[in-house]
Amino acid sequence: MLILLTNDDGVHSEGLLALREIFAKTDDVCVVAPERERTCVGHAITLHKPLRIKKVANNTYASNGSPADCVYLGIRAILKKKPDIIISGINKGPNMGQDVNYSGTVAAAKEGAFLGIPSLAVSICAREKFLFNDAALITQRIIDIVKNKTFIDSTFLNVNIPNISHKKLHGFMVTKLGKRIYNDEVFERVDPRGVTYYWIGGNSEGYEHKLGTDFYAVEKGSVSITPLGLDMTHTGSIKTYKTYFRRSL
Amino acid sequence: MLILLTNDDGVHSEGLLALREIFAKTDDVCVVAPERERTCVGHAITLHKPLRIKKVANNTYASNGSPADCVYLGIRAILKKKPDIIISGINKGPNMGQDVNYSGTVAAAKEGAFLGIPSLAVSICAREKFLFNDAALITQRIIDIVKNKTFIDSTFLNVNIPNISHKKLHGFMVTKLGKRIYNDEVFERVDPRGVTYYWIGGNSEGYEHKLGTDFYAVEKGSVSITPLGLDMTHTGSIKTYKTYFRRSL
Repeated sequence: MLILLTNDDGVHSEGLLALREIFAKTDDVCVVAPERERTCVGHAITLHKPLRIKKVANNTYASNGSPADCVYLGIRAILKKKPDIIISGINKGPNMGQDVNYSGTVAAAKEGAFLGIPSLAVSICAREKFLFNDAALITQRIIDIVKNKTFIDSTFLNVNIPNISHKKLHGFMVTKLGKRIYNDEVFERVDPRGVTYYWIGGNSEGYEHKLGTDFYAVEKGSVSITPLGLDMTHTGSIKTYKTYFRRSL
Repeated sequence: MLILLTNDDGVHSEGLLALREIFAKTDDVCVVAPERERTCVGHAITLHKPLRIKKVANNTYASNGSPADCVYLGIRAILKKKPDIIISGINKGPNMGQDVNYSGTVAAAKEGAFLGIPSLAVSICAREKFLFNDAALITQRIIDIVKNKTFIDSTFLNVNIPNISHKKLHGFMVTKLGKRIYNDEVFERVDPRGVTYYWIGGNSEGYEHKLGTDFYAVEKGSVSITPLGLDMTHTGSIKTYKTYFRRSL
């Protein structure tokens, strides 16, 4: 199988290297990833400046682009054909709840799905002491399962793996996105020149403990697998909004 | 009403200024927008560098952050309360089909919706000779309609306005996202130092002509209003994916 690997932590990130190592034993692997960390860039694409590609190791390329750019370039400029599967990760830190919107890791998988390629975003649920080899083994297991199955049209998979030994994991749980609760903080500081600046992104105050969500699965020691959709239309509300806009201009 | 305006074309963009002008006559308006063009940045947020805010005119602030950052800062650092409504735009160019994923304009409205604020992204469907005043009038009409209605939970509105005189518009059409068809191009160039670089984002080859889509509405001279959802979970496929992952680790 031809596997395209990418991430948003950068081409030298251990999570990516763990995937490259494990899949290189059995498959054709091509890595195209950002040359530096590009977390929280969302589904940014680069249309207004030139993109560069640099070979940094065998079958491994670094780009100045976003994670989504890397998927685009990997397929169209490097492989020049579609891979059988795209794996984005292993991300240092979870991507659950509304965080999937900000995540470059998830956006890279979404970009692959837009091209009709079975795609997965994989994240490890910790902030330090990451057990990447365990998470890579689990990813391999997931690929074993999905490689002979059909990805449902216009979907891709968002995987979150608890940071515990793979032997202690409770199994897979197919989930929906949960809801993280943020505080409203913005941190105001003054620089040495006396000018105010800000840090945003307050700390998470936790999440809704709801059965069937990604947060719940990980809390229970299970691998969370959430099917995400490509179509942002909220079809359920079209009927109601039609009643609002019945009137003429 | 307190209205927060933002965009991804930058604080000096005519589309934004047209909205400020029209709403300042009747409402309290606060503008917080990127200091420079930030198109296609998707739902990027800035966690790893300090954000700056600069007052550039009365109730008008420029920031070095992304459109989503501007919404965050506007509410938490400038207004210090929630506005009644957020309008992101008027974007120079359409945001329809899968393009909504890449759009900073749409992401800013999504960020507002995450905070529970009625939010709209507004775009004008042209590449030049924009009729911003007509589109601003239409936006005012839409706000008139929605201000006494309830936004459906976890939704926001993506508005695309044909670039014709408001008198010639056919009316509103509540739509779903259509599908743009891209070609697969990547443009390879060589710089004066002999190093290869790339331009991505091939030209659009058109779109699927489907009744009920945003593309269809605009083609017919109607204002397209698409309700977008905040939850990316593809609930319809959970059952099938559960059958894939039934087995143990």
